[in-house]
Amino acid sequence: MSEQSEFSLIQRYFERLTSPRDDVLLGIGDDCALLQCPADHVIAVSIDTLVEGVHFFADVSPETLGHKSLAVGLSDLAAMGATPAWFTLALSLPDVNELWLQGFSQGLAKLAQQHNIHLVGGDTTRGPLTISIQVHGFVKAEKALRRNGAKLGDMIYVTGTLGDAGVALQQKLNQWADDSLSDADNAFFQQRLEQPTPRNNIGQGLVDFATSAIDISDGLLADLGHILAKSKVGARLDLSKLPLSSSMAKIARKEVEQFALQSGDDYELCFTVPPHYVAEMEQQFQGLCTQIGIITDDDGLYCLNENDELIDLTGAETGYDHFK
Amino acid sequence: MSEQSEFSLIQRYFERLTSPRDDVLLGIGDDCALLQCPADHVIAVSIDTLVEGVHFFADVSPETLGHKSLAVGLSDLAAMGATPAWFTLALSLPDVNELWLQGFSQGLAKLAQQHNIHLVGGDTTRGPLTISIQVHGFVKAEKALRRNGAKLGDMIYVTGTLGDAGVALQQKLNQWADDSLSDADNAFFQQRLEQPTPRNNIGQGLVDFATSAIDISDGLLADLGHILAKSKVGARLDLSKLPLSSSMAKIARKEVEQFALQSGDDYELCFTVPPHYVAEMEQQFQGLCTQIGIITDDDGLYCLNENDELIDLTGAETGYDHFK
Repeated sequence: MSEQSEFSLIQRYFERLTSPRDDVLLGIGDDCALLQCPADHVIAVSIDTLVEGVHFFADVSPETLGHKSLAVGLSDLAAMGATPAWFTLALSLPDVNELWLQGFSQGLAKLAQQHNIHLVGGDTTRGPLTISIQVHGFVKAEKALRRNGAKLGDMIYVTGTLGDAGVALQQKLNQWADDSLSDADNAFFQQRLEQPTPRNNIGQGLVDFATSAIDISDGLLADLGHILAKSKVGARLDLSKLPLSSSMAKIARKEVEQFALQSGDDYELCFTVPPHYVAEMEQQFQGLCTQIGIITDDDGLYCLNENDELIDLTGAETGYDHFK
Repeated sequence: MSEQSEFSLIQRYFERLTSPRDDVLLGIGDDCALLQCPADHVIAVSIDTLVEGVHFFADVSPETLGHKSLAVGLSDLAAMGATPAWFTLALSLPDVNELWLQGFSQGLAKLAQQHNIHLVGGDTTRGPLTISIQVHGFVKAEKALRRNGAKLGDMIYVTGTLGDAGVALQQKLNQWADDSLSDADNAFFQQRLEQPTPRNNIGQGLVDFATSAIDISDGLLADLGHILAKSKVGARLDLSKLPLSSSMAKIARKEVEQFALQSGDDYELCFTVPPHYVAEMEQQFQGLCTQIGIITDDDGLYCLNENDELIDLTGAETGYDHFK
């Protein structure tokens, strides 16, 4: 389809907000965009949809929604080790609200500029507020970080801190509260939920070290579980090593573990590194990632408790399921 | 995002329905798909969204909806002269209806098989029924059929017949009726609306002849108007040459012209061919396309009436505007 008014909307609010790239031979405004893939690379693509009332609250600011809509896709590129290049935007809107469109496009564009990812096409339609973004990046085929490469003895790492977005989500749903948290703590948690930081610089660097990677959108246990299943290996986690924000550290330990292990939306990376690369990798990403466990030949996912007893975490995972 | 249940839905209903391709290094089930673009080609991409109640009626069968959802994207590739390769599917569903999913995926898969286009990724979420499909194809950069290449003296062609889908749409909206039409006529119109035939074989062949092309999703006048605006030329149409189906020919002439010129959803191609290629092109696509006019240096779009008077069609176009 090529409705003039739709292209006009995309053109008016979005086209000039991202910088041109030499590999975009033809951008918005024809039946298709024409894109040049660099030689010796393959294209990594991922599409994600955010629906109002399912993936975000109706009262979220359009700027943060614009940021998050692109961040989830960038995070998928990071988890593959791919360099961001282009994205498309399919936007359903109940009406044309200029203020909303300005805010949304600015939030989107700011993150896009940071990652040099260019809007190359789109479609806007009337409908319930729904945002689908497809991201495209480049990676060398043999270097891509798949989920199926983890090997016995690999160390398991995560970036950033875990569970912060989950705290904010439970607070928003009025399903959890902790009066000891300050306004600053709560603002931090909210920012982690609404404006996650995709870890593209780390992901792109990991192609030289990691045997597998995934982004933590459904919770550590669920997403690490995907690596274990695809790689046909097990894992043991050291719960005392889970990286926590200073705000998270104020919460009772039992709840902290639940947030850090099971809640989604953090958009941190979980990845595995063979022992001979550990030193070099840790030097390159000092302070940006934490070793939390090791790949085993166990049948599943375990941790040691304070009495050095093995606890089976398999089946305890289940993060967020949109059709539960 | 990488929700397990969502991938399971895509995997269960869609993954095996399209044939594998050698250029899909990694398909559904990781953070990204990994795709290999052939050397000497660029990638043509287009994303389109269909929303229930806006782009299709709630009572449409899931099979025909699956067909149409992919057909609109295939038509964009045809209009670019690109060979179909891969598609992604972002599907929002109010609930998991197995019968609906079976029908939708079968309609989608049947058309996908015909065009050797492979599903490489997707996202299913809970939400109002909304379907976004991004298609990807290959074309040589210098051969792609852009909108801006029409030149003075080029002949203007369209594929197939015009206006059929518009008749069905007006009937469905109860805004138009003609008692002289038979049930077979009405079934034909409905099929043209709900299951359009993307003209990929023609589009791919046109890269050797055409100077510009567009698919007619918004009506001939609106879409030819895009070519004229981008190419900075004018056009004169011969209304007596508009290709009509035998069912359409039963309708009063004045109404026929309105349908053929202004109604959308036909997904035929409109393209321009320089005089020195006309004979060869017409031989190759005999019976598949019709010459309807010529590119001029007029300032706009005109036709001659029965008294050989020039009628200005500029501004009479406006096809379907989703935000009108």
